[in-house]
Amino acid sequence: MSQNIYDDETLFAGYSRLQRSIHGLDGAPEWPALRGLLPDVQALKVLDLGCGYGWFCRWAAEHGAADVLGVDVSERMLQRAAGWKAHPGITYRRADLESIALPERAFDLIYSSLALHYIENLRGLLTSVHHALLPGARFVFSIEHPVLMAPRRQRFCKDAEGRSFWPLDGYQNEGRRVTHWLAEGVIKQHRTMGTLVNMLIDSGLTLSRMIEWGPSEEQVRSMPALAEEVERPMFLMISAQKSALCRADCYE
Amino acid sequence: MSQNIYDDETLFAGYSRLQRSIHGLDGAPEWPALRGLLPDVQALKVLDLGCGYGWFCRWAAEHGAADVLGVDVSERMLQRAAGWKAHPGITYRRADLESIALPERAFDLIYSSLALHYIENLRGLLTSVHHALLPGARFVFSIEHPVLMAPRRQRFCKDAEGRSFWPLDGYQNEGRRVTHWLAEGVIKQHRTMGTLVNMLIDSGLTLSRMIEWGPSEEQVRSMPALAEEVERPMFLMISAQKSALCRADCYE
Repeated sequence: MSQNIYDDETLFAGYSRLQRSIHGLDGAPEWPALRGLLPDVQALKVLDLGCGYGWFCRWAAEHGAADVLGVDVSERMLQRAAGWKAHPGITYRRADLESIALPERAFDLIYSSLALHYIENLRGLLTSVHHALLPGARFVFSIEHPVLMAPRRQRFCKDAEGRSFWPLDGYQNEGRRVTHWLAEGVIKQHRTMGTLVNMLIDSGLTLSRMIEWGPSEEQVRSMPALAEEVERPMFLMISAQKSALCRADCYE
Repeated sequence: MSQNIYDDETLFAGYSRLQRSIHGLDGAPEWPALRGLLPDVQALKVLDLGCGYGWFCRWAAEHGAADVLGVDVSERMLQRAAGWKAHPGITYRRADLESIALPERAFDLIYSSLALHYIENLRGLLTSVHHALLPGARFVFSIEHPVLMAPRRQRFCKDAEGRSFWPLDGYQNEGRRVTHWLAEGVIKQHRTMGTLVNMLIDSGLTLSRMIEWGPSEEQVRSMPALAEEVERPMFLMISAQKSALCRADCYE
């Protein structure tokens, strides 16, 4: 069983007060960029890995997705998700992404927002994702950027002129990072960009787009706290595709 | 015409004294990793973009490449390359990578080491590379890592405990960087990883492997000056492939 941080009371309380928890997708400044990687979801079978409160599941259902399955390891998250006005076509299921079993060739779109940096067995999960996609289907995800996750001290510093910089170190040392985000001792898994990209390729997927998210000028004007985020990449977003020619023998 | 830094006397003199200039490929600590991305060159037609002294051209010829073409914008570099014992099968040609015209579907392998960060019109060059590759052929290159190139102050700092970190800033601001490497006022082009990867994909290539180079423990032991390079990624290396199915109508 993976670390289930969102069932920690302190963390859940803190998470509930974030803009993205109160305002949903529109409270997340990176959502417009992530949405830009998505296909038209009309009539698609969609899976959301780490669905949290289910904001994306509802968005997909409201935009015409045929079926939406949201999975999360957190019971509290799923209770909150299920508490909203029910939308036909959405199913929520509790499952641990470290060991989840997915049906084969079942989804037109697999989505994941800011969940994969918690996963130790990412290689296993990506293999499952590839199996679970229909030929030609897409996997679209965001993850904390390795440059954000690597350092010992994960906060901006000021130089002698008062300008912000990000004190990068330990980039090549992959593995556990213990951070204090909303609660003490949250464990994440630092992997380099190279490792992430090669894991995707090894799983059988083809990279189709990469975004290292930073705020637009307009976002900085309306939310000055985002200004520092131009100094480093904050989130990594990737769209990858399963070959349209991928038949059963791809797996052999 | 692009900036031709290697015909600057100060820079050329400095460059001539680098380990990689004196000892060739074996003087470059990243060479084993880059070599690992290469196919067996036996009987291949090879192009080296930014061939410098021609070390790689000679390596390819000595490993059985059928034809090797080395191009560089620097007259001095090419004179030095031509001054070595001639190897049948190697041709050197002076050309500006900003505007080079390449024959269509002519090469089994296109290689480039630490040259592309000087190129303004990288999108144009990558389009030419895709056209010049045979179906199924590979483009293997190294480039200064965007994390290395982005900051205003491109040197390691020490924290209060005396530990090194890399002061990253300006990552999202793409464009010119003026550095002082061997000579004053060397101009490079900073692009994010996302931009580089998307340019490759837009040119028609498929990403097959990515390495963010850092030294091995053994390399740090034998060359302690490399120790800091575990704190940040130093070079980016990519192997990309043209589709084996790519017929003439790929270009339309």
